[in-house]
Amino acid sequence: MNESIMLLPEGEQALRLKKVRSLMRRAGVDALLVQTYANIYYLTGRVFTGYILITPDGEPTYYVKRPVGLSGDTLVSIRKPEQIELPEGLQKIALELGSVSFAQAERLRKALGVSEVTDGSDFMARSRAVKTPYEIKQIVTSGIKQERVYRKIPELYREGMTDIELQIEIERLSRLEGCLGLFRTGGDSMELFMANVLSGRNADTPTPYDFAMGGRGLDASIPVGADGSILRKGDAVMVDANGNYTGYMTDMTRTFAVSHISDLAERAHKVSIEICRRAEELGQPGTEASEIYHMAENMAHQAGLGEYFMGHRQKAGFVGHGLGIEINELPVISPRSTYRLCEGNVIALEPKFVIPDAGAVGIENTYVVYPEGLRCVTKAPEEIIILE
Amino acid sequence: MNESIMLLPEGEQALRLKKVRSLMRRAGVDALLVQTYANIYYLTGRVFTGYILITPDGEPTYYVKRPVGLSGDTLVSIRKPEQIELPEGLQKIALELGSVSFAQAERLRKALGVSEVTDGSDFMARSRAVKTPYEIKQIVTSGIKQERVYRKIPELYREGMTDIELQIEIERLSRLEGCLGLFRTGGDSMELFMANVLSGRNADTPTPYDFAMGGRGLDASIPVGADGSILRKGDAVMVDANGNYTGYMTDMTRTFAVSHISDLAERAHKVSIEICRRAEELGQPGTEASEIYHMAENMAHQAGLGEYFMGHRQKAGFVGHGLGIEINELPVISPRSTYRLCEGNVIALEPKFVIPDAGAVGIENTYVVYPEGLRCVTKAPEEIIILE
Repeated sequence: MNESIMLLPEGEQALRLKKVRSLMRRAGVDALLVQTYANIYYLTGRVFTGYILITPDGEPTYYVKRPVGLSGDTLVSIRKPEQIELPEGLQKIALELGSVSFAQAERLRKALGVSEVTDGSDFMARSRAVKTPYEIKQIVTSGIKQERVYRKIPELYREGMTDIELQIEIERLSRLEGCLGLFRTGGDSMELFMANVLSGRNADTPTPYDFAMGGRGLDASIPVGADGSILRKGDAVMVDANGNYTGYMTDMTRTFAVSHISDLAERAHKVSIEICRRAEELGQPGTEASEIYHMAENMAHQAGLGEYFMGHRQKAGFVGHGLGIEINELPVISPRSTYRLCEGNVIALEPKFVIPDAGAVGIENTYVVYPEGLRCVTKAPEEIIILE
Repeated sequence: MNESIMLLPEGEQALRLKKVRSLMRRAGVDALLVQTYANIYYLTGRVFTGYILITPDGEPTYYVKRPVGLSGDTLVSIRKPEQIELPEGLQKIALELGSVSFAQAERLRKALGVSEVTDGSDFMARSRAVKTPYEIKQIVTSGIKQERVYRKIPELYREGMTDIELQIEIERLSRLEGCLGLFRTGGDSMELFMANVLSGRNADTPTPYDFAMGGRGLDASIPVGADGSILRKGDAVMVDANGNYTGYMTDMTRTFAVSHISDLAERAHKVSIEICRRAEELGQPGTEASEIYHMAENMAHQAGLGEYFMGHRQKAGFVGHGLGIEINELPVISPRSTYRLCEGNVIALEPKFVIPDAGAVGIENTYVVYPEGLRCVTKAPEEIIILE
């Protein structure tokens, strides 16, 4: 009844490990102990509670707490980290110190019997930022399914509906189309719905979270997104959904409108589309992430829309982000990023505007970086679609 | 346009701070810097990104990064933790080392200019474990709304439906009844759906997560719960949903059946209800959490159901857990817990059984601990309800 620990296709783990090990070597690290679900999934194609030990050569060792019933040549069942036995002679040991709690890291350090540990979060993050062809296939599949959902959104609208009622129907539809319903986020400044519907004046309410857009939310305990307002004539209705259909996700935003929205809002939406077109030409291996940000900001300013760009009362500090297993991977497309795009990066670009009276407008697409430029995988129509 | 940082009713924060400070004093801690959303919400009734500094006396200081537009006498706007200035003379400083990443904690320690920090997670966890009357009111409200959802579940069933299709309809209904759609979990061994539908043989699939029950899930990336199986005659259909309607949640499980289930499964379900009845008598201020666990385990064994109790191929190590702002608060109802119940604890008890051929059976209720015993706040009918 046992199942192999390895669910990745033949050769896939080796591709991924090669990148991780090259970064380890460059940093002089002898061993990396991985324990976050996102990284365990990256290395095995499955999720377990436990640890993966990566050394410069050979098969990784899998220390598994849960579930029972997994098998592998280098699998060791453990109940607690104190049962991990490291090979002799390892000097410099890395943990995921960017994600693992201080208390857990300290317990692990003592369990491993070492006086110091170093941070290996970046080895994983940098490897994961450059997707393999197999990973890109998962993302393309998510994009196709997500497009199907977006095309049906107008059918879900009923006059007199609230923003949250529309969101609930979009979430249901996404799930029925195969959306897995959970979205992993790295870091701790996000708490995420499956879809966010942001309409009318609510769009200009600042949020504590590190998202591009805000919204008051339904309750002070989760202050983001839809606030229960009825969708009214003149409202821009922005739908920002996460498309996790395969373990790898796409991120797409489209804007709808209840009848006509203001000329200013219409114009801002067009500029968002133009920014994406420009980014598709500009973005290729070697392009600086910051250059894309500056291009977007400049285009917004030249159109006289600077005060609405990436928020109005509160602004986001980025115009895009990497994504894959998690919604916020490398690279961040921000003014001070030093990252240069490379082949295999997957990024979401979301040049958006908040026009106080109308709401949020603009689009978001997910792109794969190829040698010849950015290729879009979220292909629903980009123009504002009237809900009626 | 500014909004007060404080959203709690008059006097409420003082009640909570009194508990936190008493634990700080006992540990000889001069200052506690709180930054997790759950604890910020506990102390203010709202969520912001930043920090709250608690010292033995006076008003806490609120260091706010996001959102803009909050006001308060002791509010300081910051962009980064390096801008935090501690009052002179603080010696022993605590952070939430159980939750904050190692890298973040180290950055904070340096920013504060101290050589060492101590763990204050427990001060918050122990305070939050004992709810105030206002908090209990929020939980009671969630329970009433959740009961309404459970009573309507039979109407959602259609013959030939899959487990995930039923789950999607339950999630939609929950949202339409006001469920906020997100569930905070402490720690890092949970990734949670709004509702879990576990039916038939899928119930005996072990999961990596630290839940009472398992299930294969729809995809290897999120291996828990519904796996897309059609609900068949003879299947037990367990619905375990989180009721976050107010920022404070209830946890309830009920079992349904597609026509008749096996006598063994029926009997196990009855024993689950009997365990809850017995716990309601046993549980009162002073009762050891471990005593409740042992009672449940003993009753299961005496009924000849030990091998099915809290799982079959894989077993959970607890029969209940505290809850409130998060789904896994203190106390854990486990064999080695040293916690004694006190007035104001809120616990979910979930004595469940996995009968391999039939599925998972049993109930889960959320209880408030009063001087006279446990009072249930999740009052939907407990018997198995036939879906037809």
